Amino acid sequence: MTAKRERLKLGILASGRGTNLQAILNAIDAGSLAADARLVITNKPGALAADRAIDAGVPHQLLNHRDYENRLAFDAALVRALRAVGAEWVVLAGFMRLLTPVFIDAFAGRTINIHPSLLPAFPGVNAQKQAVDYGVRLTGCTVHFVDKGTDTGPIIAQRAIEVRQADDPDSLAARLLPVENDLLVDVLRWIAAGRVGLHDRRVTISAESPE
Amino acid sequence: MTAKRERLKLGILASGRGTNLQAILNAIDAGSLAADARLVITNKPGALAADRAIDAGVPHQLLNHRDYENRLAFDAALVRALRAVGAEWVVLAGFMRLLTPVFIDAFAGRTINIHPSLLPAFPGVNAQKQAVDYGVRLTGCTVHFVDKGTDTGPIIAQRAIEVRQADDPDSLAARLLPVENDLLVDVLRWIAAGRVGLHDRRVTISAESPE
Repeated sequence: MTAKRERLKLGILASGRGTNLQAILNAIDAGSLAADARLVITNKPGALAADRAIDAGVPHQLLNHRDYENRLAFDAALVRALRAVGAEWVVLAGFMRLLTPVFIDAFAGRTINIHPSLLPAFPGVNAQKQAVDYGVRLTGCTVHFVDKGTDTGPIIAQRAIEVRQADDPDSLAARLLPVENDLLVDVLRWIAAGRVGLHDRRVTISAESPE
Repeated sequence: MTAKRERLKLGILASGRGTNLQAILNAIDAGSLAADARLVITNKPGALAADRAIDAGVPHQLLNHRDYENRLAFDAALVRALRAVGAEWVVLAGFMRLLTPVFIDAFAGRTINIHPSLLPAFPGVNAQKQAVDYGVRLTGCTVHFVDKGTDTGPIIAQRAIEVRQADDPDSLAARLLPVENDLLVDVLRWIAAGRVGLHDRRVTISAESPE
């Protein structure tokens, strides 16, 4: 007999449309992800992600980065808000702000990001456009732990898709999005099951327990 | 009725074990690649690739780069040897010398290379070790046109494989090798069929003709 594992206490940061947020909320709602979305934070007024949180009955805060003196002050506010609700893991679900060590150290080894390329190729913004412009035949998405670099953290999972000859950045992004959604939720399931380990930069995914 | 396409007149440069060379020779021998291997050039005495050429009855020359005053002189000798046998396309099949414009301009848009990573990730030497050290979950191989950079040329095709948690550079390289062999031969089939186009850095693969 094993102790029942607690549900993952999640904070989710989003800037935009919130499709990755929606994928997480759907999986929780469907009972396929043992997590509680404790708080969704958006940093831009009017982000669709905020509506998605509200529609799902998940607590939401708008912390507008423009209201803070600098990045450190903004990041400290993020940390306070997340700690206040007991969030233990943080998902950057299309969160378009670079985080400082104030945030990264507070949730070290417990913050994950999804990026729309096969890192280390095409870090930073407009990854799909970078991929189309370079002319790669395969691209994909990467879920990784967040470290102090831009999209440089230890990789947890990656999934590839083909770039088609007719693709432009928009069509590629549209085809990649559902793959991102699935990969992010899968990784959260592994984390919720206690299967993801981080040792220096090495990520281990242990086998599913047979219980 | 269409004119019969001529067989691809290939020159193949190799430095090492020559497994990619062998894959090409096997495909020609099996009749699944409409090409003639006009010449195999190796640049190191004792390279296994030379034995493979000789065993297959394909002309072979050893051009030892150490016998030449500089890179330009070596490259000029390569070009002379390839032109002398009527080679029209050149395959770098594990050829470990950087080529100068003397060579690259002579076979511009007609020289391809196979590289054991999903470029632009992990260019240069020891790509499999770079991938393991970085901790990527997917890597693969890339066939690309050769340009003046190191593994920066226009990409023709890529194929991905998973990196396993237990992989070291050797086990990863061993699992990747048959994928490289297949991809390289597939690309040569497309070239032999006249399906590969290059327009600036954009590579097009046209549909198989129905004839």
